[in-house]
Amino acid sequence: MKVGIIGAGSIGLLFAAYISRVFEVTIYTRTAEQAAEINRRGIILQKGSEQTISIVSALPITEWKGTEALTIIAVKQYQLQSIIEKINHLSIMPENLLFLQNGMGHLKLLTNIQAKNIFVGSVEHGALKDNSYRVNHNGVGKTNVAVFNGDGLLLQQFSTRLSEEFPIEFQEDYYEMLENKLIVNAVINPLTAILQVENGELVNNPFYFNVLKNLFREISFILNLEKQEEHLQQIISICKNTAENRSSMLKDIEANRPTEIDAILGFLLEKAARQEKRAPQLETLYYLIKGKEAERGRLS
Amino acid sequence: MKVGIIGAGSIGLLFAAYISRVFEVTIYTRTAEQAAEINRRGIILQKGSEQTISIVSALPITEWKGTEALTIIAVKQYQLQSIIEKINHLSIMPENLLFLQNGMGHLKLLTNIQAKNIFVGSVEHGALKDNSYRVNHNGVGKTNVAVFNGDGLLLQQFSTRLSEEFPIEFQEDYYEMLENKLIVNAVINPLTAILQVENGELVNNPFYFNVLKNLFREISFILNLEKQEEHLQQIISICKNTAENRSSMLKDIEANRPTEIDAILGFLLEKAARQEKRAPQLETLYYLIKGKEAERGRLS
Repeated sequence: MKVGIIGAGSIGLLFAAYISRVFEVTIYTRTAEQAAEINRRGIILQKGSEQTISIVSALPITEWKGTEALTIIAVKQYQLQSIIEKINHLSIMPENLLFLQNGMGHLKLLTNIQAKNIFVGSVEHGALKDNSYRVNHNGVGKTNVAVFNGDGLLLQQFSTRLSEEFPIEFQEDYYEMLENKLIVNAVINPLTAILQVENGELVNNPFYFNVLKNLFREISFILNLEKQEEHLQQIISICKNTAENRSSMLKDIEANRPTEIDAILGFLLEKAARQEKRAPQLETLYYLIKGKEAERGRLS
Repeated sequence: MKVGIIGAGSIGLLFAAYISRVFEVTIYTRTAEQAAEINRRGIILQKGSEQTISIVSALPITEWKGTEALTIIAVKQYQLQSIIEKINHLSIMPENLLFLQNGMGHLKLLTNIQAKNIFVGSVEHGALKDNSYRVNHNGVGKTNVAVFNGDGLLLQQFSTRLSEEFPIEFQEDYYEMLENKLIVNAVINPLTAILQVENGELVNNPFYFNVLKNLFREISFILNLEKQEEHLQQIISICKNTAENRSSMLKDIEANRPTEIDAILGFLLEKAARQEKRAPQLETLYYLIKGKEAERGRLS
């Protein structure tokens, strides 16, 4: 089975490194330079003190034809629009597409895609891209996947052949799966990014913990959550288990990169507006993060 | 006329330097060391490139007897409780007391004071303490004063004798005077302290400006403000006129000092609670600042 991976950021490189142990992988990069680097050097995967090199074909994204049996789309949500236009202009209809974006803002885009089977995934690995061909697998986790449209036969065949080191777990309900992750991201990401603190500080500092709980209540109200206490306990566990981690949004802000704030809080604010509910805390945090992005000249 | 000044921070030193040109001033310090320094060196006032030395008597606060005709209390709001206990344990009842604290949290404390005349003031000068006896007058402004209790005769005599360089302006309504300043402080101070930006950024960055306007609306609702547009325009002008200034709360956070958050947002949150109004944005900002204070070990 041939597998295509679109996007060679930390998640794209991580998936390419593991999947190429079993399948023939082509990774599609934004720039021709990065494709050339990967073709020359392979993808170097660092996991603890262990280093492995995977030989992977790389091509610039302009060369993607959609012919692989499965294509994994590992770009950020804010880069997705241009990929979708590309999909809908392919000369063939692609068979199986797996989308790994954070948040839920991309769901409405997926309904416009012409493809046989569409899956969504939620990645629980920690990965840090060191340079254009080297990635550090610094948080071992799993990938949850679910069918968004069509059937999941091929994805099931694919995932059973992957090693236990890189597990893929099937979930029944794509909406619930993405919502679970969204709730966690919506609480942890903006607060850690604004406060510039590690995840653990949100539960160890009693004042920040108050903010966390109030924010969670506002999110619960917007999402009409039933099992509120379970969700809150999950957030608290994740803060404790990743106490010394810096969230992806904090790292984006520190590195002057755009954040995924629209995919996360933007989605919740739209949902609030459609229900005519007020969301003053989410709105404040949304604009604070948008302001931080603009402050550093990203929007110029 | 003898004048006492309690507190030798930036505002205490600034007032002592100007008032001692006309009146006999004793400044009361928290530590005996600072009193000794001031007695040895005088107070050095830097204003632009001009430097003047004022000879001022200094004593530790334990030596204060309340015998001066006017005593100006220039400590932070969170230090006020112990001063008030001191006032109420003096062997004589003091004649005239002028309180210069920010916010409005101190008003309820003032009703418990045994003194003939009580005034409150709102300082619009910028002053930066360089060391225990040197202060930089880096923002020339005025001091607004108003009668809180009793009559203002002596304060009027006092203020007419001060030079035009250091004007005191009488206001009719102490509540309105303090409220005006509170509104400005409640918007500018917490936002600049959390975002770690200069005042101008709050109006120049369109996303931060959204947060500013939403926050102002919540404050207006709590204070039942009538002339909302005027207040908002005042805040915008101040942000523009002090665009490159770092607010006092930002400086406190940066210097690991306690902030005046209780006097400012704490007061507004109490007011909201008494009216059974929700104040989600103020509450979030309040806990974020309290958390910042705790984070740096100030509460330990």
